[in-house]
Amino acid sequence: MPAVPSNVLLTNGSQQALDLIGKVFVNREDYIITSRPTYLGAIQAWNAYGARYHTVNLDDEGMVVEEVEHAYEKVLADSGRPPSFIYVLPNFHNPAGTTLPLKRRERLAEIATRLDLPIVEDDPYGQLRYEGEDLPPICTFVPERTMYLGTFSKTLAPGLRLGWIVCPEVLMQRFVTAKQGADLHTGTFAQHVTNDICQRGFLKPHVQRLRRVYKERRDTMLEALAEFWPEGCSWTQPQGGLFLWARVPESINTTDFLQQALEEKVAYVPGVSFYPNEDGGFDAMRLNFSYCAPDEIVEGIRRLGIALKRELRIV
Amino acid sequence: MPAVPSNVLLTNGSQQALDLIGKVFVNREDYIITSRPTYLGAIQAWNAYGARYHTVNLDDEGMVVEEVEHAYEKVLADSGRPPSFIYVLPNFHNPAGTTLPLKRRERLAEIATRLDLPIVEDDPYGQLRYEGEDLPPICTFVPERTMYLGTFSKTLAPGLRLGWIVCPEVLMQRFVTAKQGADLHTGTFAQHVTNDICQRGFLKPHVQRLRRVYKERRDTMLEALAEFWPEGCSWTQPQGGLFLWARVPESINTTDFLQQALEEKVAYVPGVSFYPNEDGGFDAMRLNFSYCAPDEIVEGIRRLGIALKRELRIV
Repeated sequence: MPAVPSNVLLTNGSQQALDLIGKVFVNREDYIITSRPTYLGAIQAWNAYGARYHTVNLDDEGMVVEEVEHAYEKVLADSGRPPSFIYVLPNFHNPAGTTLPLKRRERLAEIATRLDLPIVEDDPYGQLRYEGEDLPPICTFVPERTMYLGTFSKTLAPGLRLGWIVCPEVLMQRFVTAKQGADLHTGTFAQHVTNDICQRGFLKPHVQRLRRVYKERRDTMLEALAEFWPEGCSWTQPQGGLFLWARVPESINTTDFLQQALEEKVAYVPGVSFYPNEDGGFDAMRLNFSYCAPDEIVEGIRRLGIALKRELRIV
Repeated sequence: MPAVPSNVLLTNGSQQALDLIGKVFVNREDYIITSRPTYLGAIQAWNAYGARYHTVNLDDEGMVVEEVEHAYEKVLADSGRPPSFIYVLPNFHNPAGTTLPLKRRERLAEIATRLDLPIVEDDPYGQLRYEGEDLPPICTFVPERTMYLGTFSKTLAPGLRLGWIVCPEVLMQRFVTAKQGADLHTGTFAQHVTNDICQRGFLKPHVQRLRRVYKERRDTMLEALAEFWPEGCSWTQPQGGLFLWARVPESINTTDFLQQALEEKVAYVPGVSFYPNEDGGFDAMRLNFSYCAPDEIVEGIRRLGIALKRELRIV
């Protein structure tokens, strides 16, 4: 799906694209199909429009797309109307860190076509791949039903508030109207500055540097987890992005356990925050590996490990 | 109402403040009390939340605030619940160019207090006064029930997308939650740049220059209207801001007439656009005097005058 001026709308970060999609596509009590877990910011954006969520499972390869058809039928039976769209994070999922393989992308495109459902493809981390091959975005298979979201927030700077939505031209007027009501337009000053930065060739080597730095941090975190965490824990092995998803023994509730982590000066986001129906993730947490320096990562994972062992009484 | 960190939220232009107010305060079919005419962008923002409008008249001194109580009663009778808030543009009204005198400000504050209604005070042009004395904003009389909106868009640059809302602290958490869902935060890059511009003392003399330049353009437009427009037309005499509101003989529908104006390469916004219930303004138009140089203003008003006379068959 090539981006051309007539099918791109610049947004105030890709969070605003999620908000505009809610404004245009979600009526009160409409269902959205998403994985569990899913991106917290999307839930926050769509809750404001009264969305409900029907969730499908997520495994080490991301959303279990074969469950989408059943989810569709349940939504139809429950609400009498189809879901508003399928929400998917194909690359280095937030919070799960998983990447949808090519086969699942093709299969999701087939299913969406058969069910006549729009797809919201949220891809903020796509350029931050640390191993493996880039995979084609789902929008390349079904451009006519995909709203693809990108952003400069993870490659250049979140404070610029520059994201974009690429969508079928027939939808553009509705998004433009929603955007005008929301904030008239996206900051032209930040657009000019960003264009200048890109024209000067800064972005490509900068992203290469990010890949190098973040890859080291990811590797550091994976090694520290293996070294310091007790048995019975597991975690995803992200090929890119900023996050991994860790599971602890079921006897630990990660929302309650957060207080003990904070006493060790370590923070994470409890798993249940990413379950739109708050029906899971009690034994899970999202860990960020991009922000801290490697020595801090080791120390943070070590302290979490000690607190986990104390909680499990295996010190 | 002093602005302190705990009662100010920076928004993506003050248009976003209108949108967030809609998100927090407007449920589907709620009524908003506003003047007719009123700001088009506010209508666009609140229509997205299913707002309805009960309008009160506007005369040469702005909103006829004595009508608010009757409007409140009508809303209550019609919908069974009070209106969401009163929306008022006290200074150099868009589109009408009118300014609410001190007595009306005090009176509106009294009425809102008695009816227990919030006030949305939209003040994008307050610093652009070309004659007369500054008047206290309504929020100074009733800070506990006023959401005051300001912006850098008219004094510095709209492309920065920097506005603000000052509101009672008890409301702030709701706005922060709505803001996070809408776009996470307002661009920090633009904030740093704007802060730097202000610290360097650029803003104050720049606004003084804007006042001088825009005053000349306002005076030029008022003189050109008196010289070139036919009898039966009238217009407001704004003490500041960017716009004036012109009325033409009732036989002319300004929406239809726009085509003839465009043929003369002159544009205006037809009056009905500013009537949320589309029940007036057919003989009115909004004219902008801040954008064009004085010689273009004279030429534009001259051409509109010729087209009006042709339409009225008084050539």
